[in-house]
Formats: sequence, C-alpha cells, structure tokens
Amino acid sequence: MDKYNLVFNSSSPKYLQLSEHIKGLITSGKLTNHYKLPSIRKLASHLKVSTSTVVQCYNNLEQDGFLYKKTGGGTYVIGDNNITSLKEEFSDISLENSVPFDLASATPSPVFFPVKTFKELINQVLDRDGGYAFNYQEEGGYLPLRQSLSSMLSNYKIYATSQEISIITGGQQGIDIVATALLEKDDYVIIESPSYPGAVASFNSRGANIIEVPIRKSGIDLIQLEKTLAQYNPKLMYLMPDFQSPTGYRYDLNCRKKVVELANKYNTFIVEDDHFSDLNYTSTPLPPLKSLDNKDKVIFIKSFSKVFMPGLRLALMLPPSSLYRQLNDVKKHTDISTSGLVQRAFDLFLREGLWEEHIKSTKHIYARRFSTALKMLERTLPWEVPFTHPSGGLCIWVTLPQQYDSQTLYFEALKKGVAILPGNRFYLNNNQHNSFRLSFTSVTEQEIEKGTKVLGNTVKQFLHEYRNLHHIKHEKDKFF
Amino acid sequence: MDKYNLVFNSSSPKYLQLSEHIKGLITSGKLTNHYKLPSIRKLASHLKVSTSTVVQCYNNLEQDGFLYKKTGGGTYVIGDNNITSLKEEFSDISLENSVPFDLASATPSPVFFPVKTFKELINQVLDRDGGYAFNYQEEGGYLPLRQSLSSMLSNYKIYATSQEISIITGGQQGIDIVATALLEKDDYVIIESPSYPGAVASFNSRGANIIEVPIRKSGIDLIQLEKTLAQYNPKLMYLMPDFQSPTGYRYDLNCRKKVVELANKYNTFIVEDDHFSDLNYTSTPLPPLKSLDNKDKVIFIKSFSKVFMPGLRLALMLPPSSLYRQLNDVKKHTDISTSGLVQRAFDLFLREGLWEEHIKSTKHIYARRFSTALKMLERTLPWEVPFTHPSGGLCIWVTLPQQYDSQTLYFEALKKGVAILPGNRFYLNNNQHNSFRLSFTSVTEQEIEKGTKVLGNTVKQFLHEYRNLHHIKHEKDKFF
Repeated sequence: MDKYNLVFNSSSPKYLQLSEHIKGLITSGKLTNHYKLPSIRKLASHLKVSTSTVVQCYNNLEQDGFLYKKTGGGTYVIGDNNITSLKEEFSDISLENSVPFDLASATPSPVFFPVKTFKELINQVLDRDGGYAFNYQEEGGYLPLRQSLSSMLSNYKIYATSQEISIITGGQQGIDIVATALLEKDDYVIIESPSYPGAVASFNSRGANIIEVPIRKSGIDLIQLEKTLAQYNPKLMYLMPDFQSPTGYRYDLNCRKKVVELANKYNTFIVEDDHFSDLNYTSTPLPPLKSLDNKDKVIFIKSFSKVFMPGLRLALMLPPSSLYRQLNDVKKHTDISTSGLVQRAFDLFLREGLWEEHIKSTKHIYARRFSTALKMLERTLPWEVPFTHPSGGLCIWVTLPQQYDSQTLYFEALKKGVAILPGNRFYLNNNQHNSFRLSFTSVTEQEIEKGTKVLGNTVKQFLHEYRNLHHIKHEKDKFF
Repeated sequence: MDKYNLVFNSSSPKYLQLSEHIKGLITSGKLTNHYKLPSIRKLASHLKVSTSTVVQCYNNLEQDGFLYKKTGGGTYVIGDNNITSLKEEFSDISLENSVPFDLASATPSPVFFPVKTFKELINQVLDRDGGYAFNYQEEGGYLPLRQSLSSMLSNYKIYATSQEISIITGGQQGIDIVATALLEKDDYVIIESPSYPGAVASFNSRGANIIEVPIRKSGIDLIQLEKTLAQYNPKLMYLMPDFQSPTGYRYDLNCRKKVVELANKYNTFIVEDDHFSDLNYTSTPLPPLKSLDNKDKVIFIKSFSKVFMPGLRLALMLPPSSLYRQLNDVKKHTDISTSGLVQRAFDLFLREGLWEEHIKSTKHIYARRFSTALKMLERTLPWEVPFTHPSGGLCIWVTLPQQYDSQTLYFEALKKGVAILPGNRFYLNNNQHNSFRLSFTSVTEQEIEKGTKVLGNTVKQFLHEYRNLHHIKHEKDKFF
C-alpha cells in the first residue's frame, strides 16, 4: 500500500490530488495494465481520508480512461501501454480471465499445451543428460535438435543441413538479431502495413528508417514495393507471407515469386517471419519464400510460439550462408545460448513424431473457433464494418468506417467486458486508426458466440453515438 | 563427408589443394573448434586419393595451427575463433573432456549441478501451474520470483521491491539490453582493462567508442578513471567489482565508494556485473556498488550462470528507477519474456532455502580447487611469471615477461594436453599479449595438480626456446 502514500496540500481538492498521484503511478509504469486497485474502504483508511474522496478519485480516473471497473467488483488499471504507447505492447500477454471475453489475445491458450507429454520428455532428458542439459549448448544450438529441424523443414520444401540452422530464443529474438547484425542508423527497412510492432521496435532500436508498404488480400502491394525498393535501396524487408498478423492475409504464389525476384533485383534481404503457416485450416499450402530463394536472399525465421508454447522461447533461424557467422556472433552477445533443457526436450518431441500430432489437434481447435467467429461476425457486425476472412492463422482484421477510432471503441468494449486490439499499434503513425484485430485463442466457442454478440452491439451503439455526436450522416443515407 | 568433396586440378599438389579446402571450411566456420576430422584412411578413400596425401595435408594444417592431434588418436580442428577472432569466443563453452587438462573453462562443471533437486522442482511447477509455466510471463518477470529475489538482495544490503527488479535471460542479455537502451553510435563507454569480451561485443554492436582503464589489485585505477570521465563524458562504465574476470581482482571499499562518487560527479551510469561475489572463499564481503548508490546511477546485474547453472539463462537486473521502463521495453523486443518454467522452478529453489545450501557446497569445491591451483602454480611456474592470488571467483591471471605472446604458448600447451585462455581476447587491441587466464571448473584437484605441472614445464620450455630464438638475455642475467 505504501506506493499510494502522498502528502496532501490545501491547494486543490484531495480527490484531485489523489487522482494525479495515481495517474503518475500508471504513467510511470508502477501500476501496470489490469492491476487491481485497493478497495475504496481500504485505500480511504490507509490514507486517512473519507471514502467519498476515493470514490470521486476512482470515478474521475475512470472517466479519463485510466481505470475500468468489473461487473463482479474491483477497480483495475488501464495501463500506460494502452494509453500512450500501445505500440510497445506486442507480447500479446494473455489477460488470464481478467476480461470476460478476451478477443484480443493471439497467445495460444495454456489449456491446450501438451504439458503432460512435455513434462515426461523433460524428465527423460534430465535422466539421460544430467547437468549437460543445464550447460551452454554448442554454437548454433543443440546439434541433434538442428538435425531434427533440418528434417522437419523438408516438409516445407526447404532443404538445409543442420550446420545451416541456428536455434534461437524465440522468433522475436531472430528479428532483433537480424536488426542488430544488418542495420545501421538511417538504413532503410520495408515492412508491410499494417505489421508486427515487435519488429518495428527492433528496427527502431537500430535507428533505421522504416517504410510501410500496404498488404492486400493477395499479398504485399508489388507495385508500391518495387517503387519503394528503387527509391530507398533498403537493407531488408520484413514480411509475413502466411496469415499475416494482424490482417490474416496470405501472399499468393505469384506474389511470393515476385517478392523473391525483387529482392534479387534490388539486392536486399528478406526476413520471412513464419509463425502461422502451420495453422492452415482450409487452403492448399504455398511454398515459403525460403524455398523459392535461389539467390540466398531470405532469412527464414520459424517461431514455435504461436502453434506450440510461447513461454518455451524457441525458434529456428535459417539465414543465407553468407550471413550465418555474422548472425551467430550477434546471437552470442544477445544471450550466449538458448536453454539447453528446452532444446533437448523439444528435440525428443520432434523425434517421437509428436509435433505433427500436436499441430493436428491444435489446428482442429482453432479452425472450429475461427469458423464460429467468422459466422458470428457476419451476423453481429453492421454491414458497413467489413472484416477479413483468412483461411488460417489466428487473426481477423475488422475495419470501421474511415472516421472512426478503434481505440475509442476499445475502451467502450472493455467496459462491456470485451477486449479487442486497436489497430493503431500496427502502424508507424500510431494515431487513431479505424481498424482493429480480433483473435480467439483465449476464449471458448461459447465465449466467442457471446463475446461477438456483445461486440456487435457495442460497435452498433458506437457508430450511432459517434454519428450523433459528430452529426455524421449515415453513409447509407448518402445514396438516398 | 560431403563437405570434404573437392575437384582436384593439376596446378598444385593434391595435399595442398586439400589443405586449402579444409582451411576454407575452418575459416568459414563450417568446421568449428574441437571438431573431430575423419580418419586418414576414411578421408583418403572418400576422396579417392592416397593416404599419404591426407597425411601430408593434416601435417601441413597442424603446422599452420589449424589442427591438433590427440595422444589417444584423432585429429581435431583449432577453430577459426582461436586463430583470428578469439574475442568472439566469450561463452566459455566447456571443452567437455576433449583436452585432458582444461584450465581454460570458467563454466561450472555439470557434475555439480543440482539436477535431481531441480528436476523435482520442475515437476512440482508443472503439476501446480500446468500450461501457465509455458506461457509468456508478466512484464518484468514472474512476480513471485521477483519477490524472492527482492528478499535475496537484502542479504547483499540491496533493498529493492519486486517492482524494481527485472528477470532477464542471463547476465549477457542484461549487458546487451543496457547497450541497446543507452548507447548510440560514437557514444563513449569505459571498461576495465582487461575486461569481459561479451560486454565489448555488445558495446561494439552499438557502434560505441570503448575506452579501457586499467584494473589493479585494489580495483580500477581511479586517477585514470577520473581523467577519462572528464575527457570523454561517457554514457556508462562497465565494472566487475567482485573477483573480476579475467584477473580475479576485487575493488576495495575505498575504490567502491570513489567509483560511485565519480559516477555522480560526471553523471554517468555504472553497469555493475556481479557474477562471482557469491564465490568468496576467504575474504570479508564488501558492499556492492548498488548498495552505495544513493543517486540512482547503478544498473545492477546479477547472473546465476557462474555459481549455478549457465544453461538456465537466468539473471536479475536492478536498474535505477529512471531507466526501468526504457530497459524493460528493450528486454521486450529482445526476446519478449524469459522462460516461465525456469523462472518458476528457480523461485521454488529460492523459497525452499536451497540457494544458500548450493552456494555453500559449490564454494567448498571451488575453494579447494583454487587453493590447490595457487599452491601448485607457486611451485611449477618460474619466478619471472607472476600471477594473481584472488580470494574468490574462478579466475587466476598469469603474466609472462613482456615480450612473450600467450597465444603462442596456448598452441604449445594444447599440444601437451593443457588448455589455457590467451590474454589478447580480454583487450580491445587483440594483438599478442603476455598474460593468460586460468580457471578450474572443468578439472578435478588431481587434474589441476597434473595440469599445472605440465603447464609449468611448457612455460619454462617456451621461455627458453623463445629466448634462444630471439637471442633474448635472461632478465635475471641483466642484474649480474
């Protein structure tokens, strides 16, 4: 409770002084998102003020968008991340039931992790390898795992020896390593628009100039891409060809081929971030860029977070051979070596054929949720709010009419117990944006049904109120 | 075997062509340090050449310092790292018995890891937390662990709340995070001379200018330090006050106080890297810089690699509150979150009081080795080769007379089955250097006795031959 202590002065009402104090705790990050505040009675007695002072303070902060109240009781922080720097919040940390309908998180639900199996494998590893599992691993990663991954990659038409593969501590680390190795201040980097804020944070940390090229249903805009390549001569492009986050779009075969051709033509590297290609529900798999890469331009990063267990912190990186040593040197000064225990247990998981099984069952669950979600959104969202219909991945991208701000909708929805992910965090210009992302990893099908209904109503009400407030004519009316 | 394939031409002898080819494999990193080469018979039959071609080739490469032969048989690579870029090799990867007397590695021996206990704790965690142990953890790290660490730190006279502590993926990551957050191109950084090459790699990756200030028995040279601070206005100093690696030196109390005062006076941050303070064998503990830091200038990083298990990849970072958010944002784009399973198991380890027990037994083992090593070195090293006598840590720093190169000694010693760590890797100017580091984590007391004898003889012979070769008069003779 000590952090709430403050010395009141007589210059302004106590509830305002307390409000300012708590605002400070939130914006400095001392109180973080979804943190539960003390009860009114408790805080009042701790600060020796009347309960009405605390009530006024909490109401005041709620109005200003710093707090939210839950129907079951309790007052919670809307963290600084959600107010000023949404872009920083890219880890998709699960809200762990603090919101009844979490349609924001794309982090796989812990309920579906193969914990029992993995526990057995960890025990097997420790019985077999003893302390060596807790020692540094060889450079590039635990060799047997690299061999297993080499054979796994052939299923994706990527043919690489174990010596070409590096094990890294998650896909984000891969992006950060590439940024550190290849980018200097003022270098240019191309990203899709919208894109993954974690990559943007890494590129920014190198002082790079980031250029956005729009992504459409069939992939990145090729005309715009070539124009940008010609104009800026960028060091690399960061692309997610399969079920891109946040849009769910997938590059078609033509786009894949063209992108690799353009990388050759303009002598730039591609970072191919594959975290979703395994979650293909209904479409024929398309070859990864890496498999089309005959000029050694693609740095392939395959994350096991989204389809397996994010907390494992495990991914593979397959760079062109010309970059292998340079990237491995950076990996070394980043964290020396990825956890040996995790590498060894995951190796057994692969060797026992459990990966394919896991993907199959995971796909089954998410495919059903996805189809429920799409069906429900068709029913609940008003006609002027279109959304993408991906055939895989974990994201649906919903677009409000142009002048509407999805972050305002975010606060409205949160009040009703629904979490969405406002679109601005996926753009460089992080001002208001009219799109938002939905995902369904933390909610059951039943919760999806209920949550999308609540969301649909909130959206309708939001559009209605906004129109009244701003005297906007219903777009439909324009035609009559 | 395919990597050995080459098409011979008629322009030069086959053994030379094969030598060049294998050299290429080594310098490109395709054959790494201590890699076992195919037997002569096998390679000859694979390449369809005579065995004498392979014999000549291996001899040739051995002479050039690319290979070494073991007494038991087998030919091994002396990796590229050991020839051109020793500085890059800072992970102290254990040679795992590939050299009979490994006096180089400072990585704790897997034999002493509390594997059985830790295995039980991992199982407890998985039974208790299920999939949540494999999910992303909260920002800053798993809260109960931060609470445990907060209480652990009070034993070091550091008083910090759980909210001020961050869990990171090893000490190296901490240094890299600080470098990324605070350093821009051409900023100045002070390090001790000699210092830890892993830190140098991180500072270099930011394009910083690194300035060395000598370290002596009682700590960093304060006069030189103040001069450098005044002249360059550096962003930070990277210091290891306790049993510094590679020298084993420890800052005395006066030096500790002065260093913190200077940081305040010249408004610069200190990165205090504590990986050895727990391995204090014979001296009274001194307060960490962080505990003397009343102006919020010290970023305290405590690694659990050296005294626990390096492969865990776990450390704590306690920055000044003004840097907390900035450093955590960088941590996020570095690897999002440190392994939840490891954090949770280590938390139980601390809560059950096993840490103190572990430190006690580890100290007991290393103290005995250390004292054996010091005693033996007194006996075996010639008088003109002094060495440090640390009261803790894992390193002894040995200094040959000025004109001698410890890297040449390294190759000589390796031939006799002893590994040492040449000194040049600990300096910015990585040309020849006359000091080298010894450590005793991978060898038993018996092996220390034998190894130091072999080393002593090698050193004597080395000094003798070098003198003859360069017609250097024995320094002792100068006085007569």
